[in-house]
Amino acid sequence: MFDNPIAINDIIQRALLEDIGSSDVTTEAIVDPKRRGKAELLAKEDIVLAGLPVFVRVFRQLSSEMGFEHYFRDGERVPAGERISLISGPVSAMLQAERTALNFLQRMSGIATLARKFVDRIGTRKVRIVDTRKTVPGLRLLDKYAVRMGGGANHRLGLFDGVLIKDNHIAAAGSIKEAIDLARDKVPHTLKIEVEVEDLDGVKAAVDAGADVVLLDNMSPAIMKEAVKLTEGRVMLEASGNINMDNIEEVAQTGVHIISIGALTHSVRAVDLSLEIIPDKIV
Amino acid sequence: MFDNPIAINDIIQRALLEDIGSSDVTTEAIVDPKRRGKAELLAKEDIVLAGLPVFVRVFRQLSSEMGFEHYFRDGERVPAGERISLISGPVSAMLQAERTALNFLQRMSGIATLARKFVDRIGTRKVRIVDTRKTVPGLRLLDKYAVRMGGGANHRLGLFDGVLIKDNHIAAAGSIKEAIDLARDKVPHTLKIEVEVEDLDGVKAAVDAGADVVLLDNMSPAIMKEAVKLTEGRVMLEASGNINMDNIEEVAQTGVHIISIGALTHSVRAVDLSLEIIPDKIV
Amino acid sequence: MFDNPIAINDIIQRALLEDIGSSDVTTEAIVDPKRRGKAELLAKEDIVLAGLPVFVRVFRQLSSEMGFEHYFRDGERVPAGERISLISGPVSAMLQAERTALNFLQRMSGIATLARKFVDRIGTRKVRIVDTRKTVPGLRLLDKYAVRMGGGANHRLGLFDGVLIKDNHIAAAGSIKEAIDLARDKVPHTLKIEVEVEDLDGVKAAVDAGADVVLLDNMSPAIMKEAVKLTEGRVMLEASGNINMDNIEEVAQTGVHIISIGALTHSVRAVDLSLEIIPDKIV
Amino acid sequence: MFDNPIAINDIIQRALLEDIGSSDVTTEAIVDPKRRGKAELLAKEDIVLAGLPVFVRVFRQLSSEMGFEHYFRDGERVPAGERISLISGPVSAMLQAERTALNFLQRMSGIATLARKFVDRIGTRKVRIVDTRKTVPGLRLLDKYAVRMGGGANHRLGLFDGVLIKDNHIAAAGSIKEAIDLARDKVPHTLKIEVEVEDLDGVKAAVDAGADVVLLDNMSPAIMKEAVKLTEGRVMLEASGNINMDNIEEVAQTGVHIISIGALTHSVRAVDLSLEIIPDKIV
Amino acid sequence: MFDNPIAINDIIQRALLEDIGSSDVTTEAIVDPKRRGKAELLAKEDIVLAGLPVFVRVFRQLSSEMGFEHYFRDGERVPAGERISLISGPVSAMLQAERTALNFLQRMSGIATLARKFVDRIGTRKVRIVDTRKTVPGLRLLDKYAVRMGGGANHRLGLFDGVLIKDNHIAAAGSIKEAIDLARDKVPHTLKIEVEVEDLDGVKAAVDAGADVVLLDNMSPAIMKEAVKLTEGRVMLEASGNINMDNIEEVAQTGVHIISIGALTHSVRAVDLSLEIIPDKIV
Amino acid sequence: MFDNPIAINDIIQRALLEDIGSSDVTTEAIVDPKRRGKAELLAKEDIVLAGLPVFVRVFRQLSSEMGFEHYFRDGERVPAGERISLISGPVSAMLQAERTALNFLQRMSGIATLARKFVDRIGTRKVRIVDTRKTVPGLRLLDKYAVRMGGGANHRLGLFDGVLIKDNHIAAAGSIKEAIDLARDKVPHTLKIEVEVEDLDGVKAAVDAGADVVLLDNMSPAIMKEAVKLTEGRVMLEASGNINMDNIEEVAQTGVHIISIGALTHSVRAVDLSLEIIPDKIV
Repeated sequence: MFDNPIAINDIIQRALLEDIGSSDVTTEAIVDPKRRGKAELLAKEDIVLAGLPVFVRVFRQLSSEMGFEHYFRDGERVPAGERISLISGPVSAMLQAERTALNFLQRMSGIATLARKFVDRIGTRKVRIVDTRKTVPGLRLLDKYAVRMGGGANHRLGLFDGVLIKDNHIAAAGSIKEAIDLARDKVPHTLKIEVEVEDLDGVKAAVDAGADVVLLDNMSPAIMKEAVKLTEGRVMLEASGNINMDNIEEVAQTGVHIISIGALTHSVRAVDLSLEIIPDKIV
Repeated sequence: MFDNPIAINDIIQRALLEDIGSSDVTTEAIVDPKRRGKAELLAKEDIVLAGLPVFVRVFRQLSSEMGFEHYFRDGERVPAGERISLISGPVSAMLQAERTALNFLQRMSGIATLARKFVDRIGTRKVRIVDTRKTVPGLRLLDKYAVRMGGGANHRLGLFDGVLIKDNHIAAAGSIKEAIDLARDKVPHTLKIEVEVEDLDGVKAAVDAGADVVLLDNMSPAIMKEAVKLTEGRVMLEASGNINMDNIEEVAQTGVHIISIGALTHSVRAVDLSLEIIPDKIV
Repeated sequence: MFDNPIAINDIIQRALLEDIGSSDVTTEAIVDPKRRGKAELLAKEDIVLAGLPVFVRVFRQLSSEMGFEHYFRDGERVPAGERISLISGPVSAMLQAERTALNFLQRMSGIATLARKFVDRIGTRKVRIVDTRKTVPGLRLLDKYAVRMGGGANHRLGLFDGVLIKDNHIAAAGSIKEAIDLARDKVPHTLKIEVEVEDLDGVKAAVDAGADVVLLDNMSPAIMKEAVKLTEGRVMLEASGNINMDNIEEVAQTGVHIISIGALTHSVRAVDLSLEIIPDKIV
Repeated sequence: MFDNPIAINDIIQRALLEDIGSSDVTTEAIVDPKRRGKAELLAKEDIVLAGLPVFVRVFRQLSSEMGFEHYFRDGERVPAGERISLISGPVSAMLQAERTALNFLQRMSGIATLARKFVDRIGTRKVRIVDTRKTVPGLRLLDKYAVRMGGGANHRLGLFDGVLIKDNHIAAAGSIKEAIDLARDKVPHTLKIEVEVEDLDGVKAAVDAGADVVLLDNMSPAIMKEAVKLTEGRVMLEASGNINMDNIEEVAQTGVHIISIGALTHSVRAVDLSLEIIPDKIV
Repeated sequence: MFDNPIAINDIIQRALLEDIGSSDVTTEAIVDPKRRGKAELLAKEDIVLAGLPVFVRVFRQLSSEMGFEHYFRDGERVPAGERISLISGPVSAMLQAERTALNFLQRMSGIATLARKFVDRIGTRKVRIVDTRKTVPGLRLLDKYAVRMGGGANHRLGLFDGVLIKDNHIAAAGSIKEAIDLARDKVPHTLKIEVEVEDLDGVKAAVDAGADVVLLDNMSPAIMKEAVKLTEGRVMLEASGNINMDNIEEVAQTGVHIISIGALTHSVRAVDLSLEIIPDKIV
Repeated sequence: MFDNPIAINDIIQRALLEDIGSSDVTTEAIVDPKRRGKAELLAKEDIVLAGLPVFVRVFRQLSSEMGFEHYFRDGERVPAGERISLISGPVSAMLQAERTALNFLQRMSGIATLARKFVDRIGTRKVRIVDTRKTVPGLRLLDKYAVRMGGGANHRLGLFDGVLIKDNHIAAAGSIKEAIDLARDKVPHTLKIEVEVEDLDGVKAAVDAGADVVLLDNMSPAIMKEAVKLTEGRVMLEASGNINMDNIEEVAQTGVHIISIGALTHSVRAVDLSLEIIPDKIV
């Protein structure tokens, strides 16, 4: 699932250190470390699952004796009430991993579930729903993975893997054309050049200067349609700014290729999951 | 503001590395590093501010030449439209810090704003609104700080600074009494012993066994009132479970001392802030 | 044994890097890495063992082929001359781990052995012997674990998991009452409030202001008895300051609940252990 | 003083994180961060000072506003009762740094004070008192620095900067000669070759094979004298094993060049220092 | 110069720790830390300079008292014999930083000097000389920066900021078309899609499937010309494979847009620079 | 092979993070993670192999399912065209590890191959070829290991494991004698004292002052011979400065014991190796 186990393990280790700190005083005092048990991960509402490999690694960081059976995979819909996984292993490690594992999984599934709603809302149309850089500091890899699990796609991961020329860049360069020329001259040829514009003049200037992608910032659907007509498929068009469940269909119908939605990651509702240790399985 | 500048700086450095990665290709190509400018941080909605010292450090990590004037402080209410800060320094560093700095500040102010709403809703009553461990992995220090800025208080920071005996601990120990005895025997005497119970029998058992705090999990206000009567002030009582803006007043009126609310941090809405570089100040 | 394998492994890795640095030049030049052997860990004096899991992990960090048989467990008394463990694996890794592993184990067992002496000295009385924050920087988790293995208990682990109001806090707040009020208002409710006082007036003020624990700093046993009488069990009382093997019984008889001893960790005598590679087992 | 500020700063940061953790709950609740004060560092017994630069950096890591006046320098004797330093700055940072700073300084000065005693005991004779690798894991740089401040010298810092062929190396190689030949062939020519031997035959074999230094392990002074006579100054001789204040003079008189003493660092008594905030200087 | 001071400082700290380790034993023994001096950095051959900001930071990491005057800037040609910089500060820090600072600067200037030769060789033609991922592990940011200082441009920094479909990707996908379709469907829209092909059929297939860039792997100039003709400017063409000073002009004349050269970074000759402390300036 | 797996793993992890960053976008989009395959590592020119254990660990960091069969070992000559290793495992991990693994192996084998050439050139004479500190920052352990695999030996690893008194140290001390006296007095006795001199007077002064090793800096072979005669074997002599394949025999014949060559590591040519995934083994 993840190309980069080193980075993921580092994120998980920090999360566990943050929560356990010097010691889980309660469990250490009360639960015999030899006790073993089983627990089940349950969906308490309808969700799209994302983050199961992270969830598993949290437990495995604390004990090499953890066993897992999964009944769903990342990207699948899980109806309320379903058991997602069955976990077995030392009870003390379960209790110590539980909150951190759920904190990851509830956020990631929350993102996937919301992304899926946006994607479903626009139906079969060939429009790509993408995220933004409005993610929680430190968890961008996970947030963006979750968007993909929900059927969305990723905008650039950071400032390093995409050129996005904004108003201040344009101001610093003097004009859209000058900004694009500088970028084309200096950035790796592997990157497309995207320019954010606020009106049709901007669209025209960007296309004339050779932009690969034009971001239509806070435009009305009517203006977006004009932009689509104006550009005749010569560039990709990205709609951005205050797009929500109510207006996304209308935006999608304008003919833009990409719709970016900050709300996918900046205001995540954690979905309701629970991890229940099965009492009569504790031995 | 923060006792622990080392931990905060580490969180900020990781966030910047995550976003900038190998390079901000756009800015590096277009903006002359000698250019200086001014920017203003604006509230686009009514908020309670939290995170300004973090916001500042993000910029300072990238340039030692950043200057700041602040018109509000953490914990204060900022009405929509107000200027929070004026920032001056190298434009390139501003552009590189902007998104990361806002990601921190919008989340933290979102938490503070929500906490303030809960606190205000219960008015002047002597009930403490507290958070939980349902925070975003890696940002707990910041999430919990934000709760305080919103007028709330903190439950334990992690597993290390508070004893909370839950159902599985009780099952492992055999009974509430046995669990409390084990904890009292082994944990530092600086920690109180809190026990989570589900009914009045549990409350009674916890008090009899000498618990310092009893967490009333998912009880109705009516039962909470019984618990208050039953315990006669011998223990602190914490109400927990599905408490929201609609029912918090009723819960507060039961006489419990503490109300914990997972939603304060697990499903944060980022407040709307914007950082605008002032065009005619770029030099 | 340890809730937090991540933190422990980090401590061990740093210790090994410190000692091995660029290379164990002697062993690398002389010992064929394929050579395998056995070694025995011996007690050269009567000790209480503490740190075996750390000892084992030091070797395992250098080679996954290490095998161990243990004849004692942490917390047990080991008489002089007894074999504690039998170790088998690559000789080169043994030689490289040896000193670091012993440095940990000798210090930790030194702490446990001393703690046990204090605990035994006061016999069966219900008084808790606790440590302080006077530990070696970087090894507090291990130092405090060793105290527990010697039959002692832990005071707070750090500044984060216990409130201890000292003279300077009182001076800054204005009075004991004001300091306690501030602390009760702001710290997590999971923490007790302990106040350090120097005389009976202080004890009285602390109790009246609602302290949970009162630390009697450098008081004579006679005054401690007065404090016990005065407080009538309403608070826990901790005796502290220059308590040693000679006077601890007298202090314990005063009726205080807790005795804290800085010497448990600030001036540790490493116990005498040796690791002997068995010559005719080298193959 | 230290060549390697990067390594020292890292050690200090870890120590502060260990102690402060999520927060100094007491100070944060009670002490206004704007309060400033003065404190004095006092010697409560006669010591040789070591670690002042570390002490200073602990405070500076927490606040850039700390000021220091020093009345003694590392390596100097400080009589009981003397003021070592005067410190001024924010009171809250002082309270948070105090324990960690003292933990470093008391241990390091304890080492220096003991080393000075050994050095003084053997008077003006040309014998070098050196430490061993029996240091506290993580603090070797500091422990060894303290030995130098006490007038001692350092044995190798770790396994990387000195060859020390011990019994197991000899067993693995087949003989002293084979071990020395292997080492001379493979290790950097910048390192001397030292061999540990247990009797005069060993001394002879080591000298014949071209050892640069011979470590006389646990020999009686009489045998050491024989070794001195036997080697006639062709090699350096190091005495090691159970050397203490009672027998060091006799050992020194045998004519050996170096005496190594594990007790310098493995069983350190922290010297008695105190940091007193001056009450009427708090503003 | 660098967007990412955090990453650069981390690289420099590791380099200094690697070289200084536990201590610069020579300088610490001999040079009084209060001694101050001046040194000059000299070019011993004609070079293109790259890495001066890194050079400076190496010294600054060891002492905050270093002063610098520079007579050249990165990217400029420096004739043999010229003084590049004048450095003043503590002599001990100079001696400790010298080798590490030169190791960085000699490699980086070696890369820039070579890149400049390639760029000059093809004269004014509109062909971009780019590097590859054949860099020294750990120094890619610096290696790639040096290429830019020599007048070259960067290919993707890593696997994250560019799509490059190679033979094995094509084999795994089934065909060029299938590979491109998968990539277009899944990767961020900010990235171009580049395909490596080995013959004209591959070129045709890649263009038909919508590749943005086609990498002509190990083709003869004659075939490259065919590729240029075949594609008629619809895609960017990159020539790669065994291109050197002898054949680069011919390759450049084929009409390709980009020439990538692994030798720019995989086999770097360190240029000859020297840092001379000026004897009579030592005070 | 390496004493210090912790340090090596850290170097490898950083290299992988540098290359993979947020994700290998190409492979993640195209290659099913369940696909398995085989690949062969081939020598494309005659080399001396060095770095195979590093090569293996790069793959293993990304997948625990990698299998290896090796047909050569580090230090062996591999003729052009030979298969060095056969690798099996997940294709996606292979593609992600490939470039980083080769970057290490090609550099290390390049160093070993060149070292072997120098060693062979001087034939059976008893002269030791050693490296310098002119290595690539961050990879010194690997560079120096590769020199040993090529039949060379190592000079000091860093500033910590060897004393080398240079002109500036002498200037700071006042004279060669004073510098040596200071060093002998202060550095661990495990280190030899080497002095760099520029003429026969320097040689004489160094020997008279008791240097263990004298470095003859940039002397002609004739002068070196004089130095050999003058010192009569009382010290080791190291020749240094512009020694290359053309003049090394003549230098070796002068009678010096050690020849150090910066070019072994400062200007490494990566040898030609390739990793070919075997197409019909992909399943």
